[in-house]
Amino acid sequence: MLPFKKAARKNPKDNTLIEIATAKGKTIIGAGYCTIIAGPCAVESRDSYIETARFLQATGIHILRGGLFKPRTSPYSFKGLRELGIDIIKEARQITGLPVATEIMDVRDIDLLYENTDILQVGSRNMQNFSLLEELGKLDKPILLKRGLSATIEEWLLAAEYILDGGNEKVILCERGIRTFEPYTRNTVDIGAVPLIKHLSHLPIIVDPSHATGKWHMVTPIAKAAIAAGADGIMVEVHQDPDRALSDGKQSLTPENFSKLFKQITAMANLEGKILL
Amino acid sequence: MLPFKKAARKNPKDNTLIEIATAKGKTIIGAGYCTIIAGPCAVESRDSYIETARFLQATGIHILRGGLFKPRTSPYSFKGLRELGIDIIKEARQITGLPVATEIMDVRDIDLLYENTDILQVGSRNMQNFSLLEELGKLDKPILLKRGLSATIEEWLLAAEYILDGGNEKVILCERGIRTFEPYTRNTVDIGAVPLIKHLSHLPIIVDPSHATGKWHMVTPIAKAAIAAGADGIMVEVHQDPDRALSDGKQSLTPENFSKLFKQITAMANLEGKILL
Amino acid sequence: MLPFKKAARKNPKDNTLIEIATAKGKTIIGAGYCTIIAGPCAVESRDSYIETARFLQATGIHILRGGLFKPRTSPYSFKGLRELGIDIIKEARQITGLPVATEIMDVRDIDLLYENTDILQVGSRNMQNFSLLEELGKLDKPILLKRGLSATIEEWLLAAEYILDGGNEKVILCERGIRTFEPYTRNTVDIGAVPLIKHLSHLPIIVDPSHATGKWHMVTPIAKAAIAAGADGIMVEVHQDPDRALSDGKQSLTPENFSKLFKQITAMANLEGKILL
Amino acid sequence: MLPFKKAARKNPKDNTLIEIATAKGKTIIGAGYCTIIAGPCAVESRDSYIETARFLQATGIHILRGGLFKPRTSPYSFKGLRELGIDIIKEARQITGLPVATEIMDVRDIDLLYENTDILQVGSRNMQNFSLLEELGKLDKPILLKRGLSATIEEWLLAAEYILDGGNEKVILCERGIRTFEPYTRNTVDIGAVPLIKHLSHLPIIVDPSHATGKWHMVTPIAKAAIAAGADGIMVEVHQDPDRALSDGKQSLTPENFSKLFKQITAMANLEGKILL
Repeated sequence: MLPFKKAARKNPKDNTLIEIATAKGKTIIGAGYCTIIAGPCAVESRDSYIETARFLQATGIHILRGGLFKPRTSPYSFKGLRELGIDIIKEARQITGLPVATEIMDVRDIDLLYENTDILQVGSRNMQNFSLLEELGKLDKPILLKRGLSATIEEWLLAAEYILDGGNEKVILCERGIRTFEPYTRNTVDIGAVPLIKHLSHLPIIVDPSHATGKWHMVTPIAKAAIAAGADGIMVEVHQDPDRALSDGKQSLTPENFSKLFKQITAMANLEGKILL
Repeated sequence: MLPFKKAARKNPKDNTLIEIATAKGKTIIGAGYCTIIAGPCAVESRDSYIETARFLQATGIHILRGGLFKPRTSPYSFKGLRELGIDIIKEARQITGLPVATEIMDVRDIDLLYENTDILQVGSRNMQNFSLLEELGKLDKPILLKRGLSATIEEWLLAAEYILDGGNEKVILCERGIRTFEPYTRNTVDIGAVPLIKHLSHLPIIVDPSHATGKWHMVTPIAKAAIAAGADGIMVEVHQDPDRALSDGKQSLTPENFSKLFKQITAMANLEGKILL
Repeated sequence: MLPFKKAARKNPKDNTLIEIATAKGKTIIGAGYCTIIAGPCAVESRDSYIETARFLQATGIHILRGGLFKPRTSPYSFKGLRELGIDIIKEARQITGLPVATEIMDVRDIDLLYENTDILQVGSRNMQNFSLLEELGKLDKPILLKRGLSATIEEWLLAAEYILDGGNEKVILCERGIRTFEPYTRNTVDIGAVPLIKHLSHLPIIVDPSHATGKWHMVTPIAKAAIAAGADGIMVEVHQDPDRALSDGKQSLTPENFSKLFKQITAMANLEGKILL
Repeated sequence: MLPFKKAARKNPKDNTLIEIATAKGKTIIGAGYCTIIAGPCAVESRDSYIETARFLQATGIHILRGGLFKPRTSPYSFKGLRELGIDIIKEARQITGLPVATEIMDVRDIDLLYENTDILQVGSRNMQNFSLLEELGKLDKPILLKRGLSATIEEWLLAAEYILDGGNEKVILCERGIRTFEPYTRNTVDIGAVPLIKHLSHLPIIVDPSHATGKWHMVTPIAKAAIAAGADGIMVEVHQDPDRALSDGKQSLTPENFSKLFKQITAMANLEGKILL
């Protein structure tokens, strides 16, 4: 018997479908849909964020990334605009009609982010921050749960179980690369996690090829591989000017390269019989 | 230049010394002292905890372990006595005159634990819970910072830097095993972390051979190796009846085996010229 | 400057193409072709091997697997038919007209295998058996070089460099999963190795999803992901009766499941613009 | 039931003792003895090797390292003096009366090395070169079997089992660091392997802190930790002029630092009740 209960797949047709109501309709994740989440690693300024958001909406994405609180390895790095960026996110939602996903790092920020965003993201460093997971289990908003840097599939599903057990059934898993011995890439994408999660659980799973590789030229091949392996979507970093990004520039796509990726993902989703709203 | 500033060693004699005032005098960690921390993984009941505490104090240890809030991989496991155990810890401190170290998992528990314990421990899963580290940086109590399961030495020292940068200089590092491919042991003790931390930093470092190995028969050899490699102390799990422990029984020493370990550590500390108060 | 010279890509169009003459024409690997290698893990008996080979040839594969010398972790496991299986392989080549790939473990077997097979495979355990690599560098036959269990991309390309530097330019790289902390799968497929090798080197790279995952139900999704990520082909284990296989049964596809995989790989190769002879 | 038979410990007193006859008496490994192996990574020239050998013999070591065939990641690195160095090793044995351990990489070199050296060393890259292990199982000379870079304890003991099963009972295990995610050190010493091997097997185990850490300043602390954890000895790299070493200079001790290490190891062996011949 598996140690996870509510996260476990019951039968072949048991696939969680998550709906997010938006100003212009709805966004769907899981159960045969292919969802594309994109945006800069962090919200850096009003103008650049709105410009990127408009471009991404025009390209056809489904959900905007919008990092305000950034977990940084060093206390001396840029930690995001934090509370100051909330108004930028609100404006971007209004202009584009797209839902926004943003990272939550602290139980004390839940009210602020709950009010102003559509998906709360738990970063890999907080995957086993059980106090946070328990609070998120009490909400009725989708939680994007990134896999911990060295979390096993079992530990990851048990982290999801904390949220599900609290009463929140809207959990989206996100493979973002694991830590291995390989020094060339930032992390190693565990592509096998996709069919494995599909085998073990009914929860949707997406892949973040940007954090997983740390190299922009690997993002498109890995994004395609993710869809080919059965993922329900991808999350990609896009920046107007990657060389000047305050964080993660090396792994961000330019708008031009993102447009190319979008076309290829559309073709791949069609081959796989996935619905791209 | 190294990315950590306040955690960096300035010269060969630069060694942080941390003093903890107790009912019967003081406990010292670092700078030539050998400190032994012991106790059960979790406080389970008043009687068993007081009995173990009395035994450990009589044996000669310096600091009591006393876990109230237990981070557990599964939401269905025993999570500790939580607030209900505070009075047991207070009684043990009073009876033994020993300082108590206990794990903090949530910023909202800081006041409660600050009042009633002597060392706040950050577990490996929270090593990069930066909101928590920032709050602990504002305190004037020692913080025992366990290494993350797959944290590099640099990431670990940068987590310490968060606390130091906040103004709290009392950081004790604790190597507790890293995650590798080896399935036989729970984790793999990175014994090299001891001389490496001594080379790079002035902070004291102790080793937890119980969590690191997950097997009680490996605890004494690894504890001895830790002191031989230059560690400032060890943290060991002891349980009156390991077979009935609510968590981590397989890695807990019986009182009898702990007494043997204590003698061997004393001999090792003498050989190394360390002071055992 | 990179430490590999002859394995390094010179320009975007620099892609090694390897031709293998067969009884009925030729097989091509690399440079825009999609090559499918399949067969049982080990040759077990004449009848079962010939039956499988006929089926695979009829399905449309390009190269037969045919393991005679099997590296086994335990000295007490089945080590292959060894010299006794040579005649079976010769018969299969004749009947199907397909080239055969077989593993070489010992420099003293080179003459035997050179005479009777078409591709010599170096297993992951021998990736840094430099004496063997040096001898293979003197041959004019294709070498299938599997990635070592914990080899970095750089070490892998330097192992290829040993063969190239010896004068043999026909090296095919094979990603077969790396060792990580994850216990659920046999190994972890490093799908990122595909675009990374394409970025750094002109050598063809294929993926072995059978060894990489150890689970038959993951083979097809990972095979599709490999082609989507840019691989030049796949190598898959097929067995008439996986439950009775003498080695690696759990990861072998039945003929029926292999037929399904073949159709999906064909569709994927078409989408990617790859040529399937 | 464990998958290894001949390598398995039968009872607490079951400890293999290996004797090597020398010109001046004998050297003993295992069963309560502490054995120190030292020398340069590779034999580089007659004069420097003889000078180092004389110094080490005067210091009191038991076995000389003498690498002739060096496995190198790149085909363009110095690969050792190979056959040309045999006479240097013969001279060093004669002058010092010490046995010499040298690495074997190729089954075709067995006769040459069997005649002229006392211990044949299998490097980590060849731990699962089963053809080589099978040949070494037919000899009556001690085999020093280094742990593979990512070999589990079980795989390592099964590699030893290949040699034991062939009839050669003189196997010495050597922990030399495993591959992990930590970039600061060359490898990560798995100190837990020492008590674990002692628990599971009767074979002697030594530790190589030089290759394991890659940093000379970590060699002495780790060597002491090894003996404290129960190892039967250590293997250390010493070079007259580490800055000019043709390989592994950064991890080599100067003669002066080796003398200091030797004193500390002697004290540690005394504390542990080990016999230092």
